Amino acid sequence: MTENSLLQVIKIGGNIIDDPEALDDFLEKFSALRGKKILVHGGGKEATRVAVKMGVQTKMIDGRRITDKEMLDIVTMVYAGKINKEIVVRLQKMHTEALGLTGADVNTIQTVKRPVKDIDYGYVGDVLHDSVNVLNIKKILDAGFIPVFSAITHNGNGKLLNTNADTVAAALASAFSSTYDVSLVYSFEKNGVLSDINDEDSIIEQIDKEQYEAFKNEGVVNQGMIPKLDNAFEALMKGVSRVYIGNARNLQLLQQDAFGTKLII
Amino acid sequence: MTENSLLQVIKIGGNIIDDPEALDDFLEKFSALRGKKILVHGGGKEATRVAVKMGVQTKMIDGRRITDKEMLDIVTMVYAGKINKEIVVRLQKMHTEALGLTGADVNTIQTVKRPVKDIDYGYVGDVLHDSVNVLNIKKILDAGFIPVFSAITHNGNGKLLNTNADTVAAALASAFSSTYDVSLVYSFEKNGVLSDINDEDSIIEQIDKEQYEAFKNEGVVNQGMIPKLDNAFEALMKGVSRVYIGNARNLQLLQQDAFGTKLII
Repeated sequence: MTENSLLQVIKIGGNIIDDPEALDDFLEKFSALRGKKILVHGGGKEATRVAVKMGVQTKMIDGRRITDKEMLDIVTMVYAGKINKEIVVRLQKMHTEALGLTGADVNTIQTVKRPVKDIDYGYVGDVLHDSVNVLNIKKILDAGFIPVFSAITHNGNGKLLNTNADTVAAALASAFSSTYDVSLVYSFEKNGVLSDINDEDSIIEQIDKEQYEAFKNEGVVNQGMIPKLDNAFEALMKGVSRVYIGNARNLQLLQQDAFGTKLII
Repeated sequence: MTENSLLQVIKIGGNIIDDPEALDDFLEKFSALRGKKILVHGGGKEATRVAVKMGVQTKMIDGRRITDKEMLDIVTMVYAGKINKEIVVRLQKMHTEALGLTGADVNTIQTVKRPVKDIDYGYVGDVLHDSVNVLNIKKILDAGFIPVFSAITHNGNGKLLNTNADTVAAALASAFSSTYDVSLVYSFEKNGVLSDINDEDSIIEQIDKEQYEAFKNEGVVNQGMIPKLDNAFEALMKGVSRVYIGNARNLQLLQQDAFGTKLII
């Protein structure tokens, strides 16, 4: 099955999506990347804005959004509707054959509703080892189409589920690692993993698992980055060739292997 | 190019979408139809409900919705997000490989913003003779996927446009009439074209263009049906093999050529 051709799975963060100029700049650079690619987008603050307008309260427990039925409708409208189609229509203007997807579309990503232990997160879908439908996504890639995923998935039994976009990107990258030579790229508004959180120029160019664990223990790594980095190292363990974390406006540097922080094992 | 295999383009109306049980019943029957098929859905009253909740006023002129930027965002969220994904996730439960689409996705339907004459309809897209991207939609059909279109299209220059769903269905059917043997089906909550508007059993089984013109002149045909029927006869003129108009709950009767009213030329 190995084709050895490159597949780049690129996640774009919410703060870029909230800034139309930054988004267009990123999408231009994304369009210019050669070869097979998949875009995964986060939600930005739009879901919260729409919820406020609709009089729906955003419930948070320990900093995590609780997705009840009303909130699921809102994130489906905002992520799979407004944001996904705004990205697709801009990519089409750039002659990139973007195809907007949720995990429900041709059953591309099937997850399981998070079990209720102490907290009921509601309609939140957790990715399993076999969540990604490699066959159907490969059909889409082979047609020359560029999948653009919002992080809405489904349980295969008629329910949509809200899933973490970083996790969706990592799952897609891992699932394709036996078919393609896969790069996983987390792009956002920061320059990469920083040795000094207050200095955007203090980019760590390369980091391996051991250094990462040491940095974590020393408290060097920004708390907010930890889940992203944990996802990233897990993807490397599962066969993804390389993972990068860096600033969306530097995306063109991927071609020279010089984008943000490169993670290795 | 003629393959002579059957393609059924089925439009489902908004009142069915507003009723979860009727929608599931319809989707079961849609899933059971053999061969290639495309679903096109209307919007139902959900967009107006969401607009009210968000404090956005629905502007109508002569009974037509004006799509300003705020309303475009709402119809994109509701049609391409909530309704489209609810239909897709239900079809997936029924093991139908549904792929939700707008016209922006892989540039499937490119329209032009309606020119401003007396009235500025806003972000409304009119279908032209070459609006449908037969090549890309055929790739999707050939992959074994079932396209599910919301009636959001785009202008190819970065703008989404709101388009009439009946017109989208007719345009898809017409565009494929040289590639497939095409049936165009308008399914909704009525039994078909009725000779007595107050008697749901007074279905006209078959009607040709001449009879239709006569009925129109006599005022027999319901005013609301006229744009649908005009679209339908135009599709027949453009090579669509047959057009049916009938009740969504009788969709299985298509297989016996006995669904609602059949239009011929």
